[in-house]
Amino acid sequence: MDKISTWIATSNIALIKYWGKRDERLILPHNSSLSITLDENLSTKTSIIFSDKIDKDMFYLNGKPELVSGEGANERLKVVDSLRKMAKVKAHFLAASVNSFPTAGGLASSASGVAALVLAAADALDLDLAKKELSIIARSGSGSACRSIFGGFVKWNRGSKEDGSDSFAEQIADHRHWPEIIDLIAIVSEKEKKISSRAGMKQTVENSILYSSRVEYAEKAVVELAEAIKKKDFERLAYLIMRDSNNMHAVMLDTWPPIFYMNDVSREIVYRINDLNANENRNIAAYTFDAGPNAHIITRKGDKNKVIDAIRDIEGVRLIEAGVGAGPKVSKEHLIDEHRLVPIGV
Amino acid sequence: MDKISTWIATSNIALIKYWGKRDERLILPHNSSLSITLDENLSTKTSIIFSDKIDKDMFYLNGKPELVSGEGANERLKVVDSLRKMAKVKAHFLAASVNSFPTAGGLASSASGVAALVLAAADALDLDLAKKELSIIARSGSGSACRSIFGGFVKWNRGSKEDGSDSFAEQIADHRHWPEIIDLIAIVSEKEKKISSRAGMKQTVENSILYSSRVEYAEKAVVELAEAIKKKDFERLAYLIMRDSNNMHAVMLDTWPPIFYMNDVSREIVYRINDLNANENRNIAAYTFDAGPNAHIITRKGDKNKVIDAIRDIEGVRLIEAGVGAGPKVSKEHLIDEHRLVPIGV
Repeated sequence: MDKISTWIATSNIALIKYWGKRDERLILPHNSSLSITLDENLSTKTSIIFSDKIDKDMFYLNGKPELVSGEGANERLKVVDSLRKMAKVKAHFLAASVNSFPTAGGLASSASGVAALVLAAADALDLDLAKKELSIIARSGSGSACRSIFGGFVKWNRGSKEDGSDSFAEQIADHRHWPEIIDLIAIVSEKEKKISSRAGMKQTVENSILYSSRVEYAEKAVVELAEAIKKKDFERLAYLIMRDSNNMHAVMLDTWPPIFYMNDVSREIVYRINDLNANENRNIAAYTFDAGPNAHIITRKGDKNKVIDAIRDIEGVRLIEAGVGAGPKVSKEHLIDEHRLVPIGV
Repeated sequence: MDKISTWIATSNIALIKYWGKRDERLILPHNSSLSITLDENLSTKTSIIFSDKIDKDMFYLNGKPELVSGEGANERLKVVDSLRKMAKVKAHFLAASVNSFPTAGGLASSASGVAALVLAAADALDLDLAKKELSIIARSGSGSACRSIFGGFVKWNRGSKEDGSDSFAEQIADHRHWPEIIDLIAIVSEKEKKISSRAGMKQTVENSILYSSRVEYAEKAVVELAEAIKKKDFERLAYLIMRDSNNMHAVMLDTWPPIFYMNDVSREIVYRINDLNANENRNIAAYTFDAGPNAHIITRKGDKNKVIDAIRDIEGVRLIEAGVGAGPKVSKEHLIDEHRLVPIGV
């Protein structure tokens, strides 16, 4: 209470994807997933304070106030309420959050955003929670956020319990295990009609003919990929990454009505990476696409320039580089003036 | 012998698709398929003569000689050899074939081409074969050609025998059953890297994770679609057509390496048709895509103008219309001068 806390959490890129919930409210997935937590090039910083001097819950995103309750409210803020109840606190909160990356770029900020919010709120409320518990709470705000509680290589276990208590993330290797790995993000200008991933995955679960085969496959692929990471087997890693991305976008296309996120530029990147690997006679890079046309190209630092050369002439593509991140951390530079109780420095 | 025969066969558009062989040599499919035989707007005319005066097998396609044997030869010509053996004839043949549609447009001419060739050759050899037998022979030249032996609505039974004797096409309704049906073909300019459907489907069978689910689905969908055709239930027909096309392109994407045939223009057509149907509160049109970016839009004559209005402003798209065809027919206008034994009129 009346303690300000600020955390920085970073985004993650799923190598075996989460696409489809078995429980919409608790956000329990049909299959386990595996991701790399990225470094601070893609991060969210969040400050929060609970105080009796605040007369209503307030949340500022990139300097702008967001609806906290009622219709159109940011549903992800319910994680703060869960923690407040857990701490038996009645006070209202003031929170402020900024992303290090442009939201317009089509890069997911919900994972880093919800993770930073959960960590800051738990800290401000003096809740002493294990990372496993924090990941479960983050999961209930935005599924993939549970993975951003950890750095390095992270697995989200789907779990089987109805209450979600066994659906949490855990680190399988930290960021020092394989520091050569980088994610070259090719930002593709987007002209597609959009469907939110929340709505899209719901339709896939409801009616994709091929979905159960995907779930079965992904569950096995997580185990195989974890093995490849432990062995630092890039050849296998790359293959599994590309196949899983294709497999997920296949069930999206098989959904009714069909969901397309990749466009002609995305596909051109796929061809370029395939050709690059074919020319090298081994996999030196792997593409993966989330719910949008941007490519995440996973490669090793030593092969970075070859990847850049392979795609540099594709029109309208902009590159962002991110390494493997160490995970969330606390910050002393707050985004809230704790005396005047207003957002600052955003 | 020494009898010239000329047949015209027409193309067909599969509504439940054939994608994947259980026997490469005999061309036996993993699942049954169902198509509409189109009218003469998309046809191939073929003349053939067997004669001792001819000193080697010769085949002219659109006026140009094709390789008949050896490396690079047109493999589909083996159907002529099968028939010749069946007739116990030793003479060489001269055949000439012309397509009514530009091959560059990306429209499949192998179905009409092989069907016309089989019908003309059987006739020239005085073989008295049932249509079922002719469809089996056409199938061994190019799978989908077996469906072009019949007019109207045609089902290709996958069969289960190893020798392929139960893998043949049959008519489920003739062209007079539902004459309102038309296929508006939207020719999309193609910039994609191409993979032949023969090579592509082989890879899908070998490694698509989702393929067995597709096969199981398609087999059921053929039965459902035949029912919708019998009842003239356009709502159901349209839904099944679109889902099957999406489902096939999903397993193509799930193939390693991934196969893409649809491009951004194809996808724009999908969106337009979805919006059109949504605005009408019923399905008035259905898209389906073969191994290329061109859309076949199945609709009824009364709704044709609405469909054209919905897509007319998409850049670079050209429309061809075809109705339900009556099936192959004999012609008295030959493409070969039977006295001089040279191709003519091409």
